[in-house]
Amino acid sequence: MKLVLAIVQEKDVPKLQSELNKQKIIATQLPTKGGFLKSKNLTYFIGVDDERVPEVLDIIKAACQSRKQYVTPPISLAGSISDNSYPVEVQVGGATVMVLPVDSFHRF
Amino acid sequence: MKLVLAIVQEKDVPKLQSELNKQKIIATQLPTKGGFLKSKNLTYFIGVDDERVPEVLDIIKAACQSRKQYVTPPISLAGSISDNSYPVEVQVGGATVMVLPVDSFHRF
Amino acid sequence: MKLVLAIVQEKDVPKLQSELNKQKIIATQLPTKGGFLKSKNLTYFIGVDDERVPEVLDIIKAACQSRKQYVTPPISLAGSISDNSYPVEVQVGGATVMVLPVDSFHRF
Ligand code: NI
Ligand code: NI
Ligand code: NI
Repeated sequence: MKLVLAIVQEKDVPKLQSELNKQKIIATQLPTKGGFLKSKNLTYFIGVDDERVPEVLDIIKAACQSRKQYVTPPISLAGSISDNSYPVEVQVGGATVMVLPVDSFHRF
Repeated sequence: MKLVLAIVQEKDVPKLQSELNKQKIIATQLPTKGGFLKSKNLTYFIGVDDERVPEVLDIIKAACQSRKQYVTPPISLAGSISDNSYPVEVQVGGATVMVLPVDSFHRF
Repeated sequence: MKLVLAIVQEKDVPKLQSELNKQKIIATQLPTKGGFLKSKNLTYFIGVDDERVPEVLDIIKAACQSRKQYVTPPISLAGSISDNSYPVEVQVGGATVMVLPVDSFHRF
């Protein structure tokens, strides 16, 4: 048994969640902040048998890819025209994953 | 030292918390979602000496038991009488527990 | 690679966060409750190379120190003068840290 701890950027959460559901992989989630991609993310705790770890990593890799995107920042409250209203490049998506050893697993 | 990571279904949280307090077992908690029992749950991080792991597992097992319960779904906003107003069986309670090895422990 | 799991009392969070930023140490954070210091705290997940673990522990130790502080409890709603309006000693600050082994680390 391993614990897959995956910190997933929020843009990739819906795709990952739907894929985990489809594969009947049980995942506990919690909202987190910060990390590699400085933004809102969701952390998944996924307990899996050793032999399914590569499959879970493949699913995360397929659903979560860090990529560049152009976004137009919201117009400032003052409503003035500024450089800020031009699209800027931001990094979205992606995941940081740690696989941890587990001594024992119990379900009550 | 071990880290006991326990995902506890919300119905069993009060009983478990009161038992942990009684036994002076220090537990850090955070609200989580999803997992084995698809519902709101609380995840506990409990750092304990190796020799107390069986005791902590016994406490969790005694407080957290997955069981069936009949609940009457709330009447729909439209107020119409439907099949939904009959009691339905749901799974409540229970916990999923992973015991993780710890290299070192520090308190500052 | 190790996972440093640090439960930090809320008073010490700003100092720790600023030091982690300065040292470009990537940390994922989540609000937690309870634990050694019965109060609001923040849990950090910090993935680091084995050789940087002592550095991370030094940073946490320098920023997070459990200490006594005198606080004046808020005056009760009734506004009556009572013993409660005298300063009381409370424990603030501090951190509980566990270093966990990591089998593998991935970034997508
Ligand atoms: Ni196994
Ligand atoms: Ni020990
Ligand atoms: Ni390493």
